[in-house]
Amino acid sequence: MSWIYGLDLLGVFVFAISGVLTAIDNKFDVVGSAIIGMVTAIGGGTLRDILIGETPVGWMKDMNYLLVVLAALIVSYLFKNNIIQLKRSMFFFDTIGIGLFTILGIQKTMDIGLSPFVALLMGIVTAVFGGVLRDVLTNVVPLVFRKEIYATACLAGGILFLVLSNFSNYLNLNLVSAMLVVVIIRYLSVKFNWTLRKSIRKD
Amino acid sequence: MSWIYGLDLLGVFVFAISGVLTAIDNKFDVVGSAIIGMVTAIGGGTLRDILIGETPVGWMKDMNYLLVVLAALIVSYLFKNNIIQLKRSMFFFDTIGIGLFTILGIQKTMDIGLSPFVALLMGIVTAVFGGVLRDVLTNVVPLVFRKEIYATACLAGGILFLVLSNFSNYLNLNLVSAMLVVVIIRYLSVKFNWTLRKSIRKD
Amino acid sequence: MSWIYGLDLLGVFVFAISGVLTAIDNKFDVVGSAIIGMVTAIGGGTLRDILIGETPVGWMKDMNYLLVVLAALIVSYLFKNNIIQLKRSMFFFDTIGIGLFTILGIQKTMDIGLSPFVALLMGIVTAVFGGVLRDVLTNVVPLVFRKEIYATACLAGGILFLVLSNFSNYLNLNLVSAMLVVVIIRYLSVKFNWTLRKSIRKD
Repeated sequence: MSWIYGLDLLGVFVFAISGVLTAIDNKFDVVGSAIIGMVTAIGGGTLRDILIGETPVGWMKDMNYLLVVLAALIVSYLFKNNIIQLKRSMFFFDTIGIGLFTILGIQKTMDIGLSPFVALLMGIVTAVFGGVLRDVLTNVVPLVFRKEIYATACLAGGILFLVLSNFSNYLNLNLVSAMLVVVIIRYLSVKFNWTLRKSIRKD
Repeated sequence: MSWIYGLDLLGVFVFAISGVLTAIDNKFDVVGSAIIGMVTAIGGGTLRDILIGETPVGWMKDMNYLLVVLAALIVSYLFKNNIIQLKRSMFFFDTIGIGLFTILGIQKTMDIGLSPFVALLMGIVTAVFGGVLRDVLTNVVPLVFRKEIYATACLAGGILFLVLSNFSNYLNLNLVSAMLVVVIIRYLSVKFNWTLRKSIRKD
Repeated sequence: MSWIYGLDLLGVFVFAISGVLTAIDNKFDVVGSAIIGMVTAIGGGTLRDILIGETPVGWMKDMNYLLVVLAALIVSYLFKNNIIQLKRSMFFFDTIGIGLFTILGIQKTMDIGLSPFVALLMGIVTAVFGGVLRDVLTNVVPLVFRKEIYATACLAGGILFLVLSNFSNYLNLNLVSAMLVVVIIRYLSVKFNWTLRKSIRKD
């Protein structure tokens, strides 16, 4: 399943860049930016692994995850002005990352014998808690609590994946369909501004 | 011990409602409210399970906990205006929940062979860290740090439970006595405004 | 290795005092101060143990850590006016604590067979995340993100320790050399105000 592994690393890369850029925006120094980038990229999966008892957590056993975060840190500093122009592409890969993280979180949780309901929750945790931890560490109310569609897209994609898995053994097809649902819902929600968000920044 | 199990679920239900109402107060959307409700209700026990190494954490193995949180979410939205009128009853069940969570946290910790001192600490963590996590996620200084009596009531009830357990095997009687101490201390502290709290909201 | 154990407890003691003083500064009550002192002193090691799967976490198996935190709480309240005059000595022991926590974190991580790169990261987590958690709970942007040299000193000391360990079996000598590097870098950085910090307090 090497294309899934590649997409996973790509998701980590894009999440890490978004974390580092947030940190730079907050005028953090390079060490702070590295920590925020790492937390954003692998924080969700780390929390999932801790909750389901899969420790040492996943990225400790595969050096590539930390190397990708390091690469993202370097790329962010080298090209930080250009990356902002790439926001559209960033958004695209970010959404793919969210979709994939959801499904991988679901799979890992079901692999150790937990129920589909718990797996769905762990899929959402994998996809959104990196961002929640980033927001807690930069002292703002987590964005996901104010933008409903973000987590709802994960929920919809996750449910589709679970349903499809009951009917078909084509893992790749199930995976792509579920990710497509996440991407489409999130794309439409941004395009048409689907959200119940109100202006509640407290910081 | 089915009455204990029932009280435990009732405690989760009341904690979840209090979390959801806090989230609504903060103008969070439904997904954010669900997360805050869940964190408030099962966050303390989750942190305890992680610290003592009992993973996957407890609520993953018994679907009822998540169902009760879901029920609390629905009830909170349907009756949110009425619930505020029920504040007095809410406070009563909330205090029972705190007392019970303390004792259950102590028992679970001693069951895996850790010392009574650590067990006492884990009892307090079980009872108060759901609220601490709720406050961190909504970006306020945790309430428990400003209202001494809350954690002190858990401490007193927990110590009584440990002492009684040394002298008597009547688990139910020990449990009820300890919970009663928590309820009474908390009731009196609110009635007579026992607290060293000063006005230190920083948000 | 009893002098290492003694220094470890001394580090916990000094970290706990610094946590309690921060809490008193924030006008927290005694229970809040106790929690902040504990989190500051043993939070970094606790997070490391959770991440690498060494649960129940270390301090649960050795009562001395909690007793030292308790002693620090009492000392802080009894001598809180004098301690401020002792800031210079505090800073000295605090830096020794950071150096030692880094090395102990590295060793514990390598002992369970994880890679030196992960061990280095866990060393930094051990040394700095107690302070990060303290800052999150008191609702400020973590200090370490704004003062680069702090974590960089750990990084430098940790790398030196790993390099020396490859060439020499004199654990004590390697340890003292690495700690000395941390102490010197931190001392010089404070003396000459080496930092990229900008004024970004958001609270």
